Amino acid sequence: MKQKIDINCDLGESFGNFKIGHDAEIMPFITSANIACGFHAGDPVVIARTVKLAKENRVEIGAHPGFPDLLGFGRRNMSLSQEEVENIIIYQIGALAAFAKAADKNLQHVKPHGALYNTAAKNEAYANAIIEALRTVNSKLMLFALANSKMAKMAAEAGLRVAHEIFVDRAYNPDGSLVSRNIAGAVIEETKLVAERAVRIVKEKRVTAIDGQTVKFDEVHTICVHGDTSNAVELAKSVKKALLAADVEVTPVGTFV
Amino acid sequence: MKQKIDINCDLGESFGNFKIGHDAEIMPFITSANIACGFHAGDPVVIARTVKLAKENRVEIGAHPGFPDLLGFGRRNMSLSQEEVENIIIYQIGALAAFAKAADKNLQHVKPHGALYNTAAKNEAYANAIIEALRTVNSKLMLFALANSKMAKMAAEAGLRVAHEIFVDRAYNPDGSLVSRNIAGAVIEETKLVAERAVRIVKEKRVTAIDGQTVKFDEVHTICVHGDTSNAVELAKSVKKALLAADVEVTPVGTFV
Amino acid sequence: MKQKIDINCDLGESFGNFKIGHDAEIMPFITSANIACGFHAGDPVVIARTVKLAKENRVEIGAHPGFPDLLGFGRRNMSLSQEEVENIIIYQIGALAAFAKAADKNLQHVKPHGALYNTAAKNEAYANAIIEALRTVNSKLMLFALANSKMAKMAAEAGLRVAHEIFVDRAYNPDGSLVSRNIAGAVIEETKLVAERAVRIVKEKRVTAIDGQTVKFDEVHTICVHGDTSNAVELAKSVKKALLAADVEVTPVGTFV
Amino acid sequence: MKQKIDINCDLGESFGNFKIGHDAEIMPFITSANIACGFHAGDPVVIARTVKLAKENRVEIGAHPGFPDLLGFGRRNMSLSQEEVENIIIYQIGALAAFAKAADKNLQHVKPHGALYNTAAKNEAYANAIIEALRTVNSKLMLFALANSKMAKMAAEAGLRVAHEIFVDRAYNPDGSLVSRNIAGAVIEETKLVAERAVRIVKEKRVTAIDGQTVKFDEVHTICVHGDTSNAVELAKSVKKALLAADVEVTPVGTFV
Repeated sequence: MKQKIDINCDLGESFGNFKIGHDAEIMPFITSANIACGFHAGDPVVIARTVKLAKENRVEIGAHPGFPDLLGFGRRNMSLSQEEVENIIIYQIGALAAFAKAADKNLQHVKPHGALYNTAAKNEAYANAIIEALRTVNSKLMLFALANSKMAKMAAEAGLRVAHEIFVDRAYNPDGSLVSRNIAGAVIEETKLVAERAVRIVKEKRVTAIDGQTVKFDEVHTICVHGDTSNAVELAKSVKKALLAADVEVTPVGTFV
Repeated sequence: MKQKIDINCDLGESFGNFKIGHDAEIMPFITSANIACGFHAGDPVVIARTVKLAKENRVEIGAHPGFPDLLGFGRRNMSLSQEEVENIIIYQIGALAAFAKAADKNLQHVKPHGALYNTAAKNEAYANAIIEALRTVNSKLMLFALANSKMAKMAAEAGLRVAHEIFVDRAYNPDGSLVSRNIAGAVIEETKLVAERAVRIVKEKRVTAIDGQTVKFDEVHTICVHGDTSNAVELAKSVKKALLAADVEVTPVGTFV
Repeated sequence: MKQKIDINCDLGESFGNFKIGHDAEIMPFITSANIACGFHAGDPVVIARTVKLAKENRVEIGAHPGFPDLLGFGRRNMSLSQEEVENIIIYQIGALAAFAKAADKNLQHVKPHGALYNTAAKNEAYANAIIEALRTVNSKLMLFALANSKMAKMAAEAGLRVAHEIFVDRAYNPDGSLVSRNIAGAVIEETKLVAERAVRIVKEKRVTAIDGQTVKFDEVHTICVHGDTSNAVELAKSVKKALLAADVEVTPVGTFV
Repeated sequence: MKQKIDINCDLGESFGNFKIGHDAEIMPFITSANIACGFHAGDPVVIARTVKLAKENRVEIGAHPGFPDLLGFGRRNMSLSQEEVENIIIYQIGALAAFAKAADKNLQHVKPHGALYNTAAKNEAYANAIIEALRTVNSKLMLFALANSKMAKMAAEAGLRVAHEIFVDRAYNPDGSLVSRNIAGAVIEETKLVAERAVRIVKEKRVTAIDGQTVKFDEVHTICVHGDTSNAVELAKSVKKALLAADVEVTPVGTFV
């Protein structure tokens, strides 16, 4: 059977007059869109437009909930109670779900954003809050989680569908976590390199960490490309092209996990 | 057939550490709760708790969307485009709907809040935006609209279920609009008077306006009691008691409109 | 004596991860910077950097306070009480003044932003609130007001220093107000045309309105160039160059009003 | 010489329609007011009114800046860069300073709020950011810091005036930090006990920690009473009365540190 992979991207990150990203241009090269829900980015008009755009491009959509920190773009860690985390997730999924329904489109998945994603990958209270939110709102929603992470395991054990996610333009630590953006070499910008890296990760389920060691992934379901960098469109295009050339089927994760 | 009336109240208006209202105390005396959705008041944790409280009290719930103006509590008019109004309504309904689903409870209605409610009562663009939002998200949702208002007529013509709403503790202008809060006598605080007024409005479908003229209502489906005044609980209790004593059935509007 | 004119531009409009404008590039071509204060745009870090940038470029700075509406970028009208308007102005001037002090730089002026600017130009309550705010915080601050506007007259009568402002890339109505952005032809984008227009306005104190009539200005102290359009830098450069070629001195308004 | 002590209280914590505290009632029993600056609580109108109220009561005022987290009331820790912390402090001091100037009143001090206060007490980056902000805006401003804390020492070494602060209604750990609110016994509510505790702390510069050990304070300049509890006014009154009875002079800290 042909190998399958999903390509996801964070979209709908504009806010009123503040524009971010190249949503329309990147749509042809992805299969899943993570749509910001208004807390760290996005607003009701932006969400409506992004959902419509995804539908026109036959791209699957997911909620991309973040911390209530527009100023910090959801990238600053915040100490919330488990009840707070669970309810901000429910709220944001619900808001996005209404726009999905308005566009007669299903919600495929949920991918927590930024500091929430990174913290929940290893913090049990946050992970449980997210898992509980999905179970409560719609237990069929798939959760995007950092491949090999504790949250991925916890969500699977809780009966959720889980997509193991890989970041092809980010360097990895030997333990499978991402190298912090503050460290040199954390972000890989060279298009050709990223595309080769994507193919190897998908075909071999492994990547070379920043220190030369090999990180082995249990599962590789979806790869994230960033939508807000200057070469975002070109990079997404190259990644998709390289995967297709390597005989990998690029298709929404909801069809094969 | 016995006359029927719904009693509604705005609830869930606290925000984080900022507490407003007497939600738990007022629940036994109402049949429909309008729950703030986080724009003019309310937050994810407050919404979750308020929905649970309504369920425990067998009170029906509705979304209470407002302008994105927490500082002004949604009481300051804002000039939004029709697209903006429609989408802030969809967003807020969706957010609340997720909590309703989490509590295994149906959403009965939508009642716009404050300046949005008052402006939409007569402004066609705002009214259309609200009507379109309901039709888009869930055309079975009932809309609470100022009795006799243009929006009530427009919504009915658009095929929506409409509950004509009366404010028993507010003075009326002869044209059926509410006397502005800035004018002396706009708010009626005396419990006994409000209760008598409620009975007359429900039984006779008419009220004496501030200038002595009579306002005749086409329909009277739900009466609003306020939840954030010092005597709110006593007032709600008196209104319900007076209506029952006058042989009126107090029951959720969704059961009879 | 040589004619003098100030060129001002709205700057510091980024917010966290949301970038707006070409602040560094446009600095060499302006003499006064209106710095957003965090309500409709701007944040503490952005303000600090923008003030420093202005200082490095020997550009005078002013507070650019707006409505508390980040989502609407301060361009949506809001119904505020006079007390609310006065205090949001005081608050925003104060915030900016602290960064001016931190950079050892004087605050030259205050220019209300967007809907607040346009409404205050003709609404006496808003105009009085703004005037009172300046008198209260620092009566030496200069107020930028739409040329010929009622607010300009009121501020002068109240003893404030007033800079009459002209928009060289916007079409005018015959009464001296700006043509609404919703109307075709409201914004003039052709660089050469804008530069010629700037020279004529400064030299002749008059402009041809959208209907062909002539608008005569009592005073022309400062001209606004926009900083967030794609050709903003080129336009500012052309305007300055044309004015210098026409033997006009381009210098901060605080030096000659 | 008679012993002197300052009594401070957090005030101006209302936000629009959301009311918190008993500001007017508590004013007679305090000597310094820490006024919220709009980030975790407070708004421009509330600030204006609180500054006026303090002036009428001859109470000294200080800025009470917090994290940009209204929903969390500034009590949730946030991971900010040093540049971000420094600039949110400068911004908030500036905003408050404008209202002080408007009321012809000096700013006596700055007291960081909630999670920012607690984290900065021991985190050098946050402490340095706060110290730098004060030095930059006005090096004569006094900093309120947890007695015995690293931040208190750092601020003194940096040449700032520092008021060592004690919490008379909170239990202490043996290392001089406050017992977390999540732990039973963290808050002492019994008025008489709090008053006795206040006298002992002021007279003996020591307190019995929650485990029975003794905490010795190097300096005791100001004691904090909370303004938002149900018995806040009575407690402040009792503390002041007990201190006066013990022959302690209750006077603004700016007069003796």
